[in-house]
Amino acid sequence: MSKRTAVYRKEHFNAAHRLHNPAWDDATNQRVFGKCNNPHYHGHNYELVVRLTGTPDPETGFVYDLKVLSDLVREKVTERLDHKNLNLDLPEFRELNPTAENIARVIYEILRPEIEPALDLQVRLYETERNFVDYPVA
Amino acid sequence: MSKRTAVYRKEHFNAAHRLHNPAWDDATNQRVFGKCNNPHYHGHNYELVVRLTGTPDPETGFVYDLKVLSDLVREKVTERLDHKNLNLDLPEFRELNPTAENIARVIYEILRPEIEPALDLQVRLYETERNFVDYPVA
Amino acid sequence: MSKRTAVYRKEHFNAAHRLHNPAWDDATNQRVFGKCNNPHYHGHNYELVVRLTGTPDPETGFVYDLKVLSDLVREKVTERLDHKNLNLDLPEFRELNPTAENIARVIYEILRPEIEPALDLQVRLYETERNFVDYPVA
Amino acid sequence: MSKRTAVYRKEHFNAAHRLHNPAWDDATNQRVFGKCNNPHYHGHNYELVVRLTGTPDPETGFVYDLKVLSDLVREKVTERLDHKNLNLDLPEFRELNPTAENIARVIYEILRPEIEPALDLQVRLYETERNFVDYPVA
Amino acid sequence: MSKRTAVYRKEHFNAAHRLHNPAWDDATNQRVFGKCNNPHYHGHNYELVVRLTGTPDPETGFVYDLKVLSDLVREKVTERLDHKNLNLDLPEFRELNPTAENIARVIYEILRPEIEPALDLQVRLYETERNFVDYPVA
Amino acid sequence: MSKRTAVYRKEHFNAAHRLHNPAWDDATNQRVFGKCNNPHYHGHNYELVVRLTGTPDPETGFVYDLKVLSDLVREKVTERLDHKNLNLDLPEFRELNPTAENIARVIYEILRPEIEPALDLQVRLYETERNFVDYPVA
Repeated sequence: MSKRTAVYRKEHFNAAHRLHNPAWDDATNQRVFGKCNNPHYHGHNYELVVRLTGTPDPETGFVYDLKVLSDLVREKVTERLDHKNLNLDLPEFRELNPTAENIARVIYEILRPEIEPALDLQVRLYETERNFVDYPVA
Repeated sequence: MSKRTAVYRKEHFNAAHRLHNPAWDDATNQRVFGKCNNPHYHGHNYELVVRLTGTPDPETGFVYDLKVLSDLVREKVTERLDHKNLNLDLPEFRELNPTAENIARVIYEILRPEIEPALDLQVRLYETERNFVDYPVA
Repeated sequence: MSKRTAVYRKEHFNAAHRLHNPAWDDATNQRVFGKCNNPHYHGHNYELVVRLTGTPDPETGFVYDLKVLSDLVREKVTERLDHKNLNLDLPEFRELNPTAENIARVIYEILRPEIEPALDLQVRLYETERNFVDYPVA
Repeated sequence: MSKRTAVYRKEHFNAAHRLHNPAWDDATNQRVFGKCNNPHYHGHNYELVVRLTGTPDPETGFVYDLKVLSDLVREKVTERLDHKNLNLDLPEFRELNPTAENIARVIYEILRPEIEPALDLQVRLYETERNFVDYPVA
Repeated sequence: MSKRTAVYRKEHFNAAHRLHNPAWDDATNQRVFGKCNNPHYHGHNYELVVRLTGTPDPETGFVYDLKVLSDLVREKVTERLDHKNLNLDLPEFRELNPTAENIARVIYEILRPEIEPALDLQVRLYETERNFVDYPVA
Repeated sequence: MSKRTAVYRKEHFNAAHRLHNPAWDDATNQRVFGKCNNPHYHGHNYELVVRLTGTPDPETGFVYDLKVLSDLVREKVTERLDHKNLNLDLPEFRELNPTAENIARVIYEILRPEIEPALDLQVRLYETERNFVDYPVA
């Protein structure tokens, strides 16, 4: 019998952002966030990897149909974030600093209700090839 | 003293397959598996990552000699699967749908008896750069 | 003023094929093409890079709108080849051996009439990360 | 004796931009540039590859010291573009649409006077892994 | 509220090494380590991924500022290992065989005291794209 | 009829080297080559791409059988360079500084007599992902 298996689907989006805490003055924001605080924004090619963990269905051999997962992630996540300014265009980041950690959590919270509870969900977000995060981690 | 360490070896193979459940009629197969059900098959460059977890031998500094692991994976797995039609050429998939989940499990079951029990074994299989699976997952 | 500029768009498709010359007997096919001659086929994740060379339009700054190029390549090429058996499903390969060289030429010949003659066209096709071809080359 | 040799150095920068022709009305900009015209900007992880072609110096074996080239590209190009909004922060793009084609040409024109004339210079710019340009092309 | 999150920073260094156990005779070293035992050394482009796991700071949105982590890893690790001969230039490997497993552990032990204890630390080291290790693993 | 086509095969080897001109004193070597001059050597994972340009054989559809090219490159090049110290183990670099430019030329000169004259040959050598060379270039 099959043990638990994780399946992964990788998607991407391109977005502008700036790191900024509106509760702080400009000098503090500049000191903490450096060039990431540029008021005119900068941007990234984000790579998003969604992981679902469960047991394959014996009839299909799928933990989750990755074509369906791709369509779900595109509809709920990447169509909302792609070619957007995260600070200005996404209500989730009105009050929340769009660090990779916080973007990953927002994406997790969008997807969690869409996936059946029996499957564990984890999000990996690459801000660059060299900076990335996982959410949540046990 | 050394804690537990995981070592990884990546190998590859190229194979044809189709997704198909012989217990279903053609319309159901087509509806569920879509273009992956093409009766003439399609194919992939599979990337296989084998992970062994244990404690390094104090004399060699190895958890497992990765040259030996590479030779083992080639002999037992990739020479059997490379340039093959998984549905037609591999007895393991006569009755089992060759999804990435099931291929990873079959590879795990081939390798598990070849590796000493003290070492944990996990298989990651990339069907494409954007679709991949891990087996087993705790 | 702008000099000539090349623009590139990368797409992908997954297909099965076998190398086979129907004018030869089986022993010759087996000797020349080895495991690539498997009568049950094998397959690849093909990566296709289309290059257009010309001068940017001063109004748009584009040599060619890469979104339009992506749509064109998907409509004319990858929707026809993706998840197909090149030997059985594509009339172009009834008589033509689907080597990377020949697949690249067939793709070039599909796309050439779709692109204005003032732009030079070249196709790069990756059969694997380690085997690839360019067509045509000056 | 050594023939002509090309040497390459790859650097990166992250920037925001939007595609926009100020001579056009908003409807035309939206129709031509689509989501790339978002007035709030979006962004990319740009990868920049600089190629110099010449003959290796017999004493050093270098066409050009790639450490020196890296420092030059960082000082003249990536420190000016990294974590910037290309439309707002770079005077070169006040009147020039920051397409990949135009960014590559601007980078070429910054670097050309810094490199001895005997060496040919070409710039490749990746806007994403799947969209990229070369400037100039013979 | 945010759950535990992992953040990753990838750095690199290029080094020479040989695998050798000074307690063994030459024939045993040659038999066990093969061409990795070459007395004149060979080398690698090592890729190092440092993972920290914790809860994001509500004010910054960071588990750890990845720019600070990059500076720390460069100062403490890659400036000491880059363009070095691990066996001859690093006192840590006078008595310890520089396998990937042991290099990862040495890097972990250098970094562990530099990172606050509330954050979990793990090191991944790629010796090549196909051979890599994680330390420690639960 | 088929136009000229280029075919590529990518191989790899891991080696140690140092940059050093024996005609110079130590201070000059140190000033020019910096940390690449470390007398104890450092090393790289070299990636080698061999390109052959010609017209496909109408019977096979091959410009050159890439399996045969792979075997040739392994026999003549990578088995000689892999896990070696280029300065000490390769007679070609007794008097020649093993820069990427010079290594590419040496590989070209090894392979050129092995390939029929009707086919053009070019070598690309990656010293790192970010530093690479082509030899020869028209």
